[in-house]
Amino acid sequence: MTDRIVAADFLLTMEADDCVVTDGAVLVRDGRIAGIDTRNALISAHPAAEVKYLRDCLIMPGLVNAHMHSGLLRGTAEHLPVWDWLRLHINPMHRVLQPQEAEAASWLCYAESVLSGTTTLVDMWRFMDGSARAAEGIGNRLVAVPYVGEHPDYNYFDTLDDNERMIENWHGKANGRVGVWVGLEHLFYSDEAGQRRAIEMAKRHRTGFHTHCSEASIEAAEFETRYGKRAMFALDDLGFFETPMAMIAHAVWLDDGEIDLLARRSVSVAHNPVSNMKLASGIAPVEAMLAAGVAVGLGTDGEKENNNLDMFEEMKTASLLGKLRGLDAAALDSWKALRMGTIMGARAIGLDHEIGSLEVGKKADLIAVRTDTPRMTPLFGDGPYFNLQHNLVHAVRGSDVALTMIDGEIVVEGGELKTADLRALIDHARAVAPGLFARRAAYLAEHEHGSVQWTGPA
Amino acid sequence: MTDRIVAADFLLTMEADDCVVTDGAVLVRDGRIAGIDTRNALISAHPAAEVKYLRDCLIMPGLVNAHMHSGLLRGTAEHLPVWDWLRLHINPMHRVLQPQEAEAASWLCYAESVLSGTTTLVDMWRFMDGSARAAEGIGNRLVAVPYVGEHPDYNYFDTLDDNERMIENWHGKANGRVGVWVGLEHLFYSDEAGQRRAIEMAKRHRTGFHTHCSEASIEAAEFETRYGKRAMFALDDLGFFETPMAMIAHAVWLDDGEIDLLARRSVSVAHNPVSNMKLASGIAPVEAMLAAGVAVGLGTDGEKENNNLDMFEEMKTASLLGKLRGLDAAALDSWKALRMGTIMGARAIGLDHEIGSLEVGKKADLIAVRTDTPRMTPLFGDGPYFNLQHNLVHAVRGSDVALTMIDGEIVVEGGELKTADLRALIDHARAVAPGLFARRAAYLAEHEHGSVQWTGPA
Repeated sequence: MTDRIVAADFLLTMEADDCVVTDGAVLVRDGRIAGIDTRNALISAHPAAEVKYLRDCLIMPGLVNAHMHSGLLRGTAEHLPVWDWLRLHINPMHRVLQPQEAEAASWLCYAESVLSGTTTLVDMWRFMDGSARAAEGIGNRLVAVPYVGEHPDYNYFDTLDDNERMIENWHGKANGRVGVWVGLEHLFYSDEAGQRRAIEMAKRHRTGFHTHCSEASIEAAEFETRYGKRAMFALDDLGFFETPMAMIAHAVWLDDGEIDLLARRSVSVAHNPVSNMKLASGIAPVEAMLAAGVAVGLGTDGEKENNNLDMFEEMKTASLLGKLRGLDAAALDSWKALRMGTIMGARAIGLDHEIGSLEVGKKADLIAVRTDTPRMTPLFGDGPYFNLQHNLVHAVRGSDVALTMIDGEIVVEGGELKTADLRALIDHARAVAPGLFARRAAYLAEHEHGSVQWTGPA
Repeated sequence: MTDRIVAADFLLTMEADDCVVTDGAVLVRDGRIAGIDTRNALISAHPAAEVKYLRDCLIMPGLVNAHMHSGLLRGTAEHLPVWDWLRLHINPMHRVLQPQEAEAASWLCYAESVLSGTTTLVDMWRFMDGSARAAEGIGNRLVAVPYVGEHPDYNYFDTLDDNERMIENWHGKANGRVGVWVGLEHLFYSDEAGQRRAIEMAKRHRTGFHTHCSEASIEAAEFETRYGKRAMFALDDLGFFETPMAMIAHAVWLDDGEIDLLARRSVSVAHNPVSNMKLASGIAPVEAMLAAGVAVGLGTDGEKENNNLDMFEEMKTASLLGKLRGLDAAALDSWKALRMGTIMGARAIGLDHEIGSLEVGKKADLIAVRTDTPRMTPLFGDGPYFNLQHNLVHAVRGSDVALTMIDGEIVVEGGELKTADLRALIDHARAVAPGLFARRAAYLAEHEHGSVQWTGPA
């Protein structure tokens, strides 16, 4: 494969804070970063390389969305707190969801993601063969985490059998772009045998484990009732933190002891600031987790909880929410938000040796962001008014992404998706969604006050 | 002038909640809305009209940004609470700001605004002849509010003389697109004579009055010290609420008595959710203000407080922050956010008889938002899954705006600014900003612990 030099006005490596190379460039060879220098120096050293010079852009690592769900419910499940919302909108959808609908959702959500600068997604979703095919086609990196229920009340979710089959069929496929973890919707969605098997399966396949926990305040009381302890200690005592890599989505309602436990046990967190505001869950103690050494990545959560998958918005909201939490304008500064969106997100999913920063030897997962916009004006790449990092977090939108490269392949260029027909993906999603809604409506008409057991402490 | 029909897949009138016309169109004549109907009906009734059919778009009223500041400091004044930030970054900038810099800032900020769907701006800024010229040129509607200081410690701001001259020269100009109000940076930035004159001037010219108040929690104690009462009661007793139209920016730290007072005195509020998070000011009691009948508009605040001027982001953040405030996922729903961004914003500035909704007789201030995007998928304009309003608030970004029409003139089309050379505005702002920073640095080097008196309760 030909060497390729990708150059822009600025290069933000995220190797360390404030590492900006003016007129910087990356040498891409066989899908990896083979050199980083100024444009002129790289061109001189590699005269045969094809040069792509992105004028009026900056290059930075692709964003890592540490928690999302593919879906087709955008804007149709609003204004309810999380456990009511699960009962009335989400779980009934899971009962009637069909594989081809799930696959349509993944194609569309991955397209939306790469268009706005996300190169790696942790997707907890259903029937994930289709998701893996979507990642193959769109070209994104994917950590597939099946939405598993192993309990008579939740037997309409994916099963651990499905999950194991996904691991066997897909883990490491698509040139290593697809990984598969063990998932559990929530601890309460599994009986004890399922819990033990999930842990054993993650260990045996040397893969990660991901679940939702401590999202809503009402969970704490239920953990107390069921386990006589706080949620993170319950998960630890059950053995979940013995898995090779455990990541908790949300972790809003942690006390200091739980934060300390996560740090000691190298458990990571996917923080979802927009979702936590929209579902009125609360403000996660992110600064405290970072101070304790917990790897905190950022997630958009699903299209139904957010309702978009723009990680630039997520970085901004993380910073804003961090400042609001303790009314401290210095909290969760732009570098922390950028780290959570890139290298720390990579660390949270155990991939920081491969992605998350621009370093020689890592995968060539990078994005170019336009700088010729009012919202990037003025722009200083160094000096006392250095503001490139603040503009990136607080001003840029995902729609400013001009180019997305994953594994050395150009997936988005000139703001356009190159690997699939976007309009066809949108039309297909719009064509299949009404059927899903109709079957859910039919189910709800029959079972409105059906068999879902726990809807918050009674 | 030729009649023009602007049509799209959906028309959101904001006359009332959930008023969506499928295949709707607006007839524009002499800058006003002369008809609203389905596309086919309007074309049949007005066969001579020029038809602009925006496929894959929805049309809605242009957004009203009820509080912003033009500026050139984006991303250079970060991580400080509001009063420290004023002392170290903002007020020293005001000391050295020159008219041509102020004008460059307005051209750029108005361009950014119309590109993202804002048609009316309330701009508190300096040397506002330049701002008025920018509004003439860009084509936006402007309420110009000079940043006035009438106090020996703040004699480097605009003066009431400047403000009165602006009213005389510009109020009602540019086909009525430019209005001028009386401004005061903050009550504490004026002596008593200045306060009396500001009130008298607003009454005599039958115009509005706008100031910042109750943004930071520390203001309450200072009002107690100076006036022996809470801020809104102090403003009322001084006579500010006798002006024809008073609007308070921020109003974060109000108690119930103050909210009731604002409602009784028909005082409006400009709510700035992003700024209030970024400067760690707090969460304004918006639901309580709305319930009391206060007209609450939305503002982005300045490029230095936000750091962009995207009113779609502001509507989303307003909704999210409203839900977070009382941990109530049903609070500040999408319709309320849309109203604050349109018709209620118009009411907050006394222009709801002219703008803020699509109604026959009103000014043709409207925008077209693209619907052919993943973030608008699925899309239902009516029925049980009606989600157009939720997608608009929670998924759309300002960059989805395809067309902006103000006063019947097309200002943005195909996402491109039509009334000025955007690149030239950006380049000009980037050329003049460094001089401003250099003079501010020189001032700060000489006076770092200078004459600014009140920096919070001592």
